[in-house]
Amino acid sequence: MNVPKIDLPRIVVIGCGFAGLKLCKKINTKNHQVVLLDKNNYHTFQPLMYQVASAGVEPDSIIYPIRKVFKGKKNFHFRMTEVKNVDTDSKTVHTSIGDIDYDHLVIATGAATNYFGNENIEQNSMPMKSLVEALNLRSLILQNFEKALNTKDLAERESLMNFVIVGAGATGVELAGALAELKKYVLPNDYPELDIRRMEIHLIEASGKVLGNMSEKASSKSEVFLRKMGVNIWLDTMVKDYDGHLITTNKNDFQSKTLIWAAGVKGAPTKGLNVELNHSNRIVVDEFNKIAGLENVYAIGDVSSVETANTPRGHAMLASVAEQQGKQLGKNFNRISAGKEMQPFKYSDKGTMATIGRNLAVVDLSFIQFGGIFAWITWMFVHLMLLVDFRNRLIVFMNWAWSYVNYDKGTRLIVREYKKEAVSLSVNKKEEIIKDESLSVKLS
Amino acid sequence: MNVPKIDLPRIVVIGCGFAGLKLCKKINTKNHQVVLLDKNNYHTFQPLMYQVASAGVEPDSIIYPIRKVFKGKKNFHFRMTEVKNVDTDSKTVHTSIGDIDYDHLVIATGAATNYFGNENIEQNSMPMKSLVEALNLRSLILQNFEKALNTKDLAERESLMNFVIVGAGATGVELAGALAELKKYVLPNDYPELDIRRMEIHLIEASGKVLGNMSEKASSKSEVFLRKMGVNIWLDTMVKDYDGHLITTNKNDFQSKTLIWAAGVKGAPTKGLNVELNHSNRIVVDEFNKIAGLENVYAIGDVSSVETANTPRGHAMLASVAEQQGKQLGKNFNRISAGKEMQPFKYSDKGTMATIGRNLAVVDLSFIQFGGIFAWITWMFVHLMLLVDFRNRLIVFMNWAWSYVNYDKGTRLIVREYKKEAVSLSVNKKEEIIKDESLSVKLS
Repeated sequence: MNVPKIDLPRIVVIGCGFAGLKLCKKINTKNHQVVLLDKNNYHTFQPLMYQVASAGVEPDSIIYPIRKVFKGKKNFHFRMTEVKNVDTDSKTVHTSIGDIDYDHLVIATGAATNYFGNENIEQNSMPMKSLVEALNLRSLILQNFEKALNTKDLAERESLMNFVIVGAGATGVELAGALAELKKYVLPNDYPELDIRRMEIHLIEASGKVLGNMSEKASSKSEVFLRKMGVNIWLDTMVKDYDGHLITTNKNDFQSKTLIWAAGVKGAPTKGLNVELNHSNRIVVDEFNKIAGLENVYAIGDVSSVETANTPRGHAMLASVAEQQGKQLGKNFNRISAGKEMQPFKYSDKGTMATIGRNLAVVDLSFIQFGGIFAWITWMFVHLMLLVDFRNRLIVFMNWAWSYVNYDKGTRLIVREYKKEAVSLSVNKKEEIIKDESLSVKLS
Repeated sequence: MNVPKIDLPRIVVIGCGFAGLKLCKKINTKNHQVVLLDKNNYHTFQPLMYQVASAGVEPDSIIYPIRKVFKGKKNFHFRMTEVKNVDTDSKTVHTSIGDIDYDHLVIATGAATNYFGNENIEQNSMPMKSLVEALNLRSLILQNFEKALNTKDLAERESLMNFVIVGAGATGVELAGALAELKKYVLPNDYPELDIRRMEIHLIEASGKVLGNMSEKASSKSEVFLRKMGVNIWLDTMVKDYDGHLITTNKNDFQSKTLIWAAGVKGAPTKGLNVELNHSNRIVVDEFNKIAGLENVYAIGDVSSVETANTPRGHAMLASVAEQQGKQLGKNFNRISAGKEMQPFKYSDKGTMATIGRNLAVVDLSFIQFGGIFAWITWMFVHLMLLVDFRNRLIVFMNWAWSYVNYDKGTRLIVREYKKEAVSLSVNKKEEIIKDESLSVKLS
């Protein structure tokens, strides 16, 4: 890789999510060279992804150019590339644009959707872990209604208008709420020819409550809010299979063209690491975010699990944990180069919150739990402040204000049509493919 | 097609550009049923497309959901579909979602990029006639710089950093100016490792002046502005060929990975029409926008050319002409149903304008021509007012204000990577393709 070799220890960071971003911001690059690798040229503010999927905010307002964050930072190099694997013996990272050596390596590759091994579900359901996936979901939701207009078969139409969300964590709950708002305020105007009352939103959860990681109060309040908004909640229900039409569970079955899979994530470690992974595929690290058995290799964010005596099962996979880990590791790099000892990571829980809909949210702080309009305002304010910069904040705020005043969602746009059968699509290319001799040899 | 048959004459409108949009807004649907067909679910504000391509505004802020425009309009039906062809004998439109009969048919299918028959250029250059094309161009421009970092071959690097725009009409001029701004204000910060001074912007024009359809004053002023901003202008220069690397003209040759083709458009009429087309593939219509020889078939907007004694060569392909045609035809439908005569179309030229960069624009009005900062403010104000609604206006304005204050462009994001060789891409799918038996038969 085309990065200058200078007389400073080189830290290679893989991934620019919340953890990688905070880390790189924190590291003093007078004493280190930092090389940040990510497959995208932007950082994604994941907490608002569900609003992109539900036509609430512009995609471009929740992502942020990485190069802009690090404008003017010396000895810092960003490369947009796919990391293939890591060789910790030779201390080399292999990427699609060549190899790079490291003195210190930080794995901040985040999480991936966890289908728990069910291939049918993986193939037929919609994940929402990346911006492109959120955009695909936005297209699909709208396409379904366009299609529903074209069929006289009532069962088919209802199947297009039914949305089943699996997993009642923050993502599932927030998306269910956003869909309920679309149903209530937007879709009846957009599709007067359809009987939107027949649209159903199902939220399926394997455990006995929604927002399981929040307080009892938040959990029960959000359930009330969701039911009030018309979301059907199915607790203690495990999805078993999905063929693109029929969802089977241990209880009811559901007919739906759209299964949104928010039931789980797992760590997405870089290939080639010979390390201990916990039950959710996360890399086990110590309180300094170091990986046991490897020299100068760290993991932070969702891909890591800080398992110590105090936290035997690690922390939850949350943006706030990731940010604090990144910040702490950055500080530790600076401490080492100043001849000081590393400090252990300690998570400071600032609280959690989730929004369900217009004027409806739940907030858990250490000293108080509350829900309703004040929680909703708190949620909005906190999320606006967390957005990377002023421009994004302003645009998200404009969208929210607009939606609030007009009972509307402005971005119900199918910019690129989502085609489930990407494979059969490439079939249309067969003529061109045949033109390519090297391929036709392989094919025939 | 699943549209109710009611006891009113049915007007089918193909295309929701400026012409189709204005027409449908104008038609009184107490007296007509209107069925609007478009392949997208949004209307595109084409004049700002170059700003999407050059990372200046969000894609979602220059497009607008069609269903939202016609919210509450009775006897109005929108269908997102691809029109296959028209059968004027049986008065039927064939589409991807079925057939529909019409009493009146309006062709408002707009224009397509005109490569003047050069297949190499068509295959290797970047057009900018649709939002997706503008987004592809945005991705490609940014990808080029990411790639330039990875090569030590100076010629290769310069070829990635050279941008050649063909056609110095409004689109070419505005895009050239926007690229010059990226070069001056944004890219040196984003890519400190590259010598951005080596980036070249070439604007090639076959005729002897830029902005040929504007006044002498506007033309010469914009040329001065462009040169001042570092754009290389090549007049009287005809591009002959482009293989993806080398651009050959009747004069100089250029090495560039990116050729942006803004050299011409042509009418894009619906298939199956047996009608007279003029030299730019536009449908010749009379002053009532009627197509000679067909019963109740009209054409408006870029696809039409109103050729009368006063306008023997038709009008320019401009948004303002399209809007006025749409409005006039809408009025005429209303007049007929009120038992009145149709009124002939008369274009009222409100003026033309183009922006080149920060504080630099040119404006031609019938009574005055001016350029500079006041023209730039006028351009901004007029374009903001023309945007479909308040939300879009506000967001575009925020982007502009942000860029102006910060000398920045906020949306330099590669949301979906642009792959020139879409064909070789599908090659990666060969394994899946082979699995598809029906295809492997066709292939072998």
